[in-house]
Amino acid sequence: MKIAVDTMGGDYAPHEIVKGSIVGAHENGVDLILVGPEKTLQQELVKYDIQGINIDLVHTDEWLLEGEPPAYTLRRKRNASILLAVKQVKAGKADAIVSAGPTGGVLAAALEVLGTVEGISRPVFGGCFLGLAPQMFAADLGGNVDVRPDQLLDFAVVGTVYVRKTLGIQNPTVALLSNGREDGKGNELTKAAVPLLKQSGLNFIGCVEGHDLVAGTANVIVCDAFVGNIIVKFGEGLGKAIINLIKEELKDKLANDGINSLADKIFSATNIADSLGGGPLLAVNGVVCKGHGRSQAEEFAKVIGQAKFFAENDLPGSFQAELAVAKSKVGITQG
Amino acid sequence: MKIAVDTMGGDYAPHEIVKGSIVGAHENGVDLILVGPEKTLQQELVKYDIQGINIDLVHTDEWLLEGEPPAYTLRRKRNASILLAVKQVKAGKADAIVSAGPTGGVLAAALEVLGTVEGISRPVFGGCFLGLAPQMFAADLGGNVDVRPDQLLDFAVVGTVYVRKTLGIQNPTVALLSNGREDGKGNELTKAAVPLLKQSGLNFIGCVEGHDLVAGTANVIVCDAFVGNIIVKFGEGLGKAIINLIKEELKDKLANDGINSLADKIFSATNIADSLGGGPLLAVNGVVCKGHGRSQAEEFAKVIGQAKFFAENDLPGSFQAELAVAKSKVGITQG
Repeated sequence: MKIAVDTMGGDYAPHEIVKGSIVGAHENGVDLILVGPEKTLQQELVKYDIQGINIDLVHTDEWLLEGEPPAYTLRRKRNASILLAVKQVKAGKADAIVSAGPTGGVLAAALEVLGTVEGISRPVFGGCFLGLAPQMFAADLGGNVDVRPDQLLDFAVVGTVYVRKTLGIQNPTVALLSNGREDGKGNELTKAAVPLLKQSGLNFIGCVEGHDLVAGTANVIVCDAFVGNIIVKFGEGLGKAIINLIKEELKDKLANDGINSLADKIFSATNIADSLGGGPLLAVNGVVCKGHGRSQAEEFAKVIGQAKFFAENDLPGSFQAELAVAKSKVGITQG
Repeated sequence: MKIAVDTMGGDYAPHEIVKGSIVGAHENGVDLILVGPEKTLQQELVKYDIQGINIDLVHTDEWLLEGEPPAYTLRRKRNASILLAVKQVKAGKADAIVSAGPTGGVLAAALEVLGTVEGISRPVFGGCFLGLAPQMFAADLGGNVDVRPDQLLDFAVVGTVYVRKTLGIQNPTVALLSNGREDGKGNELTKAAVPLLKQSGLNFIGCVEGHDLVAGTANVIVCDAFVGNIIVKFGEGLGKAIINLIKEELKDKLANDGINSLADKIFSATNIADSLGGGPLLAVNGVVCKGHGRSQAEEFAKVIGQAKFFAENDLPGSFQAELAVAKSKVGITQG
C-alpha cells in the first residue's frame, strides 16, 4: 500500500510532516509518495532511518498558503503540492492521500481531481463531534446548508458506513434531528425525509431532539449544515463559558491542578473543532485524509494510519454501494 | 388596574394561586377578578387579609386538566376557567390575565378570544433563555417552524420591544442566527431576511453564529423555531451532562456543599425551560401572563406584578406600533 503525502500543508510543514510520514510508514508498513520541493525533502529524509520504506518524491515549487482563497488559488497554482498529491490517487499510483493543509484547499483539490462517489453530489462533513457522546456521528456539519430530503438520506448512509467501519457497530441506529419526536413535529424538510429514511433499509429509529445529541440516542444523527454548524458552535461556546464559570467558582476551593484537570475534561466533552479538523473527506471518490493544521509528527503519523485503514476498507466503494442500495429502496434512480 | 386570574391552573391550584394573587395584589396595588368555583374561592379567601383589594369572583365549574389536548378540550369546556378569565380582558373588565395552567391551553384561549396584534399572524415564543447571556433575548423558540423572511423580522421587532421594556435598553442590537457572519453564508431563509432587517430601522448588526448565543453578542437574536427548539434542548442537555461530569469528577475532591453550589450555578447558566415556562405571551393582542405550572404563592405573586407592568406599558400596543413602523420601512403592507 502506498500513501501520497502533501508535505507542504500544515503549520509545521515540511519538517514535522516528513517526520510524521516516516514514523507512520514504519508503524503501518506502507510506502510513501512525498510531494514537495525535492531538495528540501532530501535534506529532511537524511535525518531519519527510512530503511524498508519505498519512498518516491514528486517535485513541486508551489503550494497553498494559509489564508489564500483555495479554489481561486488552485486555478493559478496548477502544481500546488495538494493538487499533485491528490493526482497520485487518481492515477492509481497511491491508495490514499494525506494533507495537513487548509481544509478548503484539500477539499477543492479532492473535488477537482477525484469528485464525489456516484450517487452523491457533494462531500459530507460529519464526525463523532461530541466527547460526551463518542459513539454518535452527526452530519452534515459543513457546507450542505439548503438540502433536499434525499440529501438527508445521503448523510444517513454515509454516517452508517462510517460508524460501521470505525466503531465496529454493525447496524448503527439512525435518527433525524428535529424539534420533537411526535408525528406532526418537524419542518417541511424533515417531514419529507422521514418516509425516505423509513424505506431506506437503514436502522432508522425516528426523529430525535436537541438533548439526544448529548445523550447519543442514535449512532448517526442527521441534519442540514445550517443547523449542524449552529449546534457545533453553540456547544463549543457553552463548553468554554462553563469552563470559565467553573474556574471562577472553584478558584478558592480547589487546587489549580484539580481545576485544570476538570477544565480539560469539560473541554474534551464539548469541544468539537478538534475532532472535525481531521479525518477522511466523506463521500469523496478516493481516500483523502486531512490532518489538523497544527499537526506535529506524532499526530500526522496517526493520520497515515487512518489513511491506510480507510483505503484497506475501501471507504469510497462502501459509500457508493450503500448509497445505491438505500436509493433503490426508496425509488431514487442512481446517477 | 384589575388583573384576571385563572385560579384553577397550575399544580397547586387553587390554594397557592389564590394566596399568590392576594400577595401580588397587595404588593402591586391592583384589584382582582378571580375565576373559579365560587364556594372554593370563598373558602380560600377567608384565610387572608384582603382589605384594600377589590375582588370580583367569576364562577365556573370547568377547567383544563393537565394532559388534556388544549384546543380540543376548549371546544367542549366552554366555561373553562382560562377561557372565562381571558374573556375578562376582551370585555374590558380586566387589564391583564394570569394563569399557571398548561401552556397550550393558555395559548389556545388567548388566541381564540384575543387573537394576535395587527401585523403578525402567530404568537412569538422567546425569552432571555440562557443564564450565561441574561441580556440576550432569542426567538422563536416555540411553534413557528417553517417561517418566511418577514416573520424573522416580526421576531426581531417583538424582541426589540420586549428587551426595551424589560431590560431598559433603548436601542437593542438585533442579529440573525446563521452558520457564518460573512456574505455568502446563511441559508435561503436568512439570506432573504438580511435585506429586510437592514431596512427595518431596527439596530441590526448582521448575522451571528452559534457561539454568539453564549456570548450574548446581540440583545435580540432571531431564528426559526426548528433551530430555536433544537438549540434550547441541546443547551439544556449539555448543561445537565456537564453537571453529571463535574459531580463524578469532584466527588472525592470537594465537599458536597461546594459541588451542589457549582451544579446549581451551571444549571441556572444553561437551563432554559425555567425561564420559558413563564412570562407574557408575545404578540397576543392583550396582556396574557403565564406562570410556571409548579408556581407556588410567592412565584405567582411575581407574575401578578409582571402582568401589571406589561399592562401599564401597553406591551401589545407597542408591538403593534413597532411592527407597523418596521414593515412600512421594508415596504410590507400591514394587515
